Amino acid sequence: MAPQIDGFFSQVDSLSSHFIDRLSKAVAIPSVSSEAARRPDVVRMAHFLADELKTLGASVELRPLGKQPDNPELDLPPVVLARYGNDKNKRTILVYGHYDVQPAEKSDGWATEPFTLSVGEDGRMFGRGSTDDKGPVLGWLNAIEAHQKANVDFPVNLLMCFEGMEEYGSEGLEELIQKEGKGYFADADAVCISDNYWLGTEKPCLTYGLRGCNYYGVEISGPGADLHSGVFGGTAQEPMTDLVRILASLVDTHGKILIPGIMDQVAPVTKEEETLYDGISFTMETLHDSLGSKTTIFEDTKSTLMARWRFPSLSIHGIEGAFSAPGAKTVIPAKVIGKFSIRIVPNMEIEKVNEIVAKHVNDTFATFGSKNTLKVYPIHTGNWWAASPNHWNFRAASKAVERVWGVQPDFTREGGSIPITLTFEQSTGKNVLLLPMGSSTDGAHSINEKLDKKNYIEGIKLLGAYLHYVAEEPQQ
Amino acid sequence: MAPQIDGFFSQVDSLSSHFIDRLSKAVAIPSVSSEAARRPDVVRMAHFLADELKTLGASVELRPLGKQPDNPELDLPPVVLARYGNDKNKRTILVYGHYDVQPAEKSDGWATEPFTLSVGEDGRMFGRGSTDDKGPVLGWLNAIEAHQKANVDFPVNLLMCFEGMEEYGSEGLEELIQKEGKGYFADADAVCISDNYWLGTEKPCLTYGLRGCNYYGVEISGPGADLHSGVFGGTAQEPMTDLVRILASLVDTHGKILIPGIMDQVAPVTKEEETLYDGISFTMETLHDSLGSKTTIFEDTKSTLMARWRFPSLSIHGIEGAFSAPGAKTVIPAKVIGKFSIRIVPNMEIEKVNEIVAKHVNDTFATFGSKNTLKVYPIHTGNWWAASPNHWNFRAASKAVERVWGVQPDFTREGGSIPITLTFEQSTGKNVLLLPMGSSTDGAHSINEKLDKKNYIEGIKLLGAYLHYVAEEPQQ
Repeated sequence: MAPQIDGFFSQVDSLSSHFIDRLSKAVAIPSVSSEAARRPDVVRMAHFLADELKTLGASVELRPLGKQPDNPELDLPPVVLARYGNDKNKRTILVYGHYDVQPAEKSDGWATEPFTLSVGEDGRMFGRGSTDDKGPVLGWLNAIEAHQKANVDFPVNLLMCFEGMEEYGSEGLEELIQKEGKGYFADADAVCISDNYWLGTEKPCLTYGLRGCNYYGVEISGPGADLHSGVFGGTAQEPMTDLVRILASLVDTHGKILIPGIMDQVAPVTKEEETLYDGISFTMETLHDSLGSKTTIFEDTKSTLMARWRFPSLSIHGIEGAFSAPGAKTVIPAKVIGKFSIRIVPNMEIEKVNEIVAKHVNDTFATFGSKNTLKVYPIHTGNWWAASPNHWNFRAASKAVERVWGVQPDFTREGGSIPITLTFEQSTGKNVLLLPMGSSTDGAHSINEKLDKKNYIEGIKLLGAYLHYVAEEPQQ
Repeated sequence: MAPQIDGFFSQVDSLSSHFIDRLSKAVAIPSVSSEAARRPDVVRMAHFLADELKTLGASVELRPLGKQPDNPELDLPPVVLARYGNDKNKRTILVYGHYDVQPAEKSDGWATEPFTLSVGEDGRMFGRGSTDDKGPVLGWLNAIEAHQKANVDFPVNLLMCFEGMEEYGSEGLEELIQKEGKGYFADADAVCISDNYWLGTEKPCLTYGLRGCNYYGVEISGPGADLHSGVFGGTAQEPMTDLVRILASLVDTHGKILIPGIMDQVAPVTKEEETLYDGISFTMETLHDSLGSKTTIFEDTKSTLMARWRFPSLSIHGIEGAFSAPGAKTVIPAKVIGKFSIRIVPNMEIEKVNEIVAKHVNDTFATFGSKNTLKVYPIHTGNWWAASPNHWNFRAASKAVERVWGVQPDFTREGGSIPITLTFEQSTGKNVLLLPMGSSTDGAHSINEKLDKKNYIEGIKLLGAYLHYVAEEPQQ
C-alpha cells in the first residue's frame, strides 16, 4: 500500500493551490443557515458541492427536506447525498459533513472579510466555514481528485451525506438518516465524521465518545403579574425565593451533583479506559488559557479530562422571567423559569435521569411549604455516545494518523454533544469515528475562524490514508 | 368655621365643570418626563401651571435645574415654586406635587386616547396624569379659586413646589429642597404631599410612614468569557452555582430574612401603634385581587399590613449576565450579578444594614471554598420615613376627612418609598403628611389611568378643608 499512498500524498501536495482555491470558492458563498435571507446562498452552496462531485464522477442527489418547522414559508436546504464507487469487493464508508456556516459580519470584529478566504504568510487561512466544516467536507472531494490525478485506485466506495442546517439544529436530517439507514446508506460498513477538533494544536486525535445533554426548566409561578416589591414585599410568597433555593440544591462549587441517584448510574472507570488518558497532549495551562482564568475544579489534567468527558456535569444557565438588565428594578417576578442541564454519560438513561431530577426538585420544593406552583420538565434531551476505540474503523484511522503526522493519536472524547453521531450509529448499526482535521484554536463559532493550511493539506492526506487503511484493516 | 367651609364647598360644586375643564387642559399636555422628545411638553406644562397660578394671584418662579445628568444636552424642566398669601398671622403650609407623567400610548392598550381626558357616565375620568399627579396638583389651585369666588378668606399661606421629573427619579429636586429648606420654604409650618392613594376604593386614609429600600448587587465572576457547558461543564467552578447558593441564603418562602442581625434592628410594635391597625378598611380578598393569586404569606390582614408597612422584607429581583431568554442555551455565564433589595423600616440604619449584608454574603461565600471572585455592594439606598400621626398636621387632616367624607380616615403606611417625603422632612424640620386624593384602583402607572370625578371634586374640598383645620389646630 505504501507506494500507492505515497503517490496520492505527492499529488495532494501538487494540487494544494488548487485545493485552497476550491476552499476559497466555498468560503465565498455565505451559506448561513440561521438567517432566512441567506437561504439562497445555502442552496447555492449545495449546488456548488453537487457540481464539484459530479465533475469528479460521483452520482449525486439533492434531497429536499420540506419546509423549515419554525418558518414554514422557508424551504430547508437540500441534503447532498452522493456515492463515489460501487465495487462490491470494496468496503463502503459513509462520511458526513455540513456545508452551512455560523453567521459572520466584519463588524463583529473580524480582522478580514469573513466570506473571503484570507491566507496569511504564516499559513493561517481565515474565513467563515474554513474549519467548520467546509475544509473537512472539501477534504473528501480533494482526496477523490488526488487519487484520480495520481492514478491511484480509490480504496473504498464512498457514501457522502452533507447537510445545510447543522448550525441550526440539523432540521430534518435525523428523519432522513433514520430512513436511509437501510436505504441509501444500507451498504455502509463504517461511518466517519470530520466535524470536530484536536484537543490542542500539536497532536491529532480520534474521538470515540460524546456526552449527552438533558436540559431542564423549573418553572415557579405565584402572582398573576409582576409585582412592586415596595407594595408587596413581605406579603406574597415570591417565586424567585423558591427558585434560587431549588437551584442551590442541585450542585456545589466543586461540581458535585447533589441530586440523589445521578452518580449511581455512571459506568465505573476501567483500567483499560484509564490507560487512554496517559500521555494525552493536554496541560492545565491550556485549560487556563481557554478558561481565561484559573478557576478550575481540579488541579490535574486526568481528573479534568475525565470530568469533561466521562463524568456527568450540571450547569445552571440562567433564569427566564426575572429582572436581567443592568441597573436596579424593584420587581417581584410573577413567574420564573430556571434553566439547567446535565451532561450525561454511559450508562445513564435519559428517562431515569428525568425521573430523579423531577423527584429531587419536587421533594425539595415540598420542604418549603410554598403556595406557589412548581413545574419541572425536560426542554430537550440527548443521549451520550461512546464507540469502541478498538474497532477496525479506529485502528485504521490511528494508522493513518501515524502515517501522516508521525505520531500516535490521542484517543479523546468530547464534553459536548453532536447528536447526529448517535443517529448515524443507531440508523446504520455501524461503528462511527470522529476524525478531526482542524485544531483547538480554529475558533469554529467565533470571529476570525481559521484553518491552518497544514491542517487542511495534511488533513486531505489523512482522510485519504484513512480510506486506504480502512480498506485493508481486518475485522478483528 | 363651618359656614365658611360650607360656602367654599358649595362653590367647589358650582365650579366642578370648570375644574374638570382645567384638568382636561392639563391632561392634554403630554408631559412625559422620561422621553427626551417630550421635554418641550413638560416645559409647556410648567408654564401652564405658572400661568394659572399667576392668574389666581400667586407669585410664581420657574426655577431651572440645569442639565439632565444622563443626557447632558437636555435641560431639566423647571420646578414651579409659588406662594399664595404672605400673612404673618397665618400658618404657612408647603405642598408638593408633580406635573410630569408616565409614558402612555394608545397602542399600549388604552381604551381611550391617553392624553384626552375622557369623562364617562359613571364619573370615571380617564387620562394619563389624571390621578398621578395632575388632579391633586390642580386640587390646590382649584381650592384657591373656589375660596376667591366664594369670597372666603384663604386660611393659610400656601407654598407650592411642583416638579416635572418625578417619574424619572426627581432629578435635581433633592438639592433644591435641601437648599430652600431655610430659603423659599423657611416659614413653612408643615408639609402636605398629595401623591399617593387610598388603601382601597371606599375609605380615605392619611399616610404616616414609608419603608426605605437598600438595593444590592452580588457579583460573582470566574472565567474570562462565557463558556460552553459541553466543553467546560465539570472542569470550571461556575459563578452561577455560587450565586444561587448565596441568593438562597437570604430569605425563605415565608419571607423570613435569614441574614443574621437584620431583625434585631426593627422597632418593636407598641400598643398604641397596634390600635392603628384595628378597623383598617382592607380585606384579604382585596389583596388576593391585587396579587392575582392566593399565594400570600399571611392569612390575616393585620399581619399582612404590618409585613407590608412596618417590617422589613427581602426580594430577589433577578440575575444580570445569565441566560434569560426563552429557549435553551448551554452557556456557563462568566460573570453574574444577583440583584436583591431589603425594604427597611424604623429603626434600621442604612450603613449598618449594608455592613451586615456584606458580612453575611462574604461569610456564606467563604464556606463554598470557591476560586471565583465575589463582590457585594449597595446599588442604591434610601431611608424609611415615619411621622407622628398625632401631630396637629395629621389631626387637621383627619378632621377634614371626617367633614368631607363622613368617616374617620385609616392611618396607613406604605411599603414602597417616596424619597422626597424624607427630604422635605429633613430640609424643613417640619411634620410631613401624605394626603391622598385618588383611590387604589386608579392605575397610576398603568394603562387606563383614571381619577373618579367624586374623588377629584370631594378631593378639592378635602384639600381646602384641611387648610382650614390646619389653620386652627392647636400645637398640642
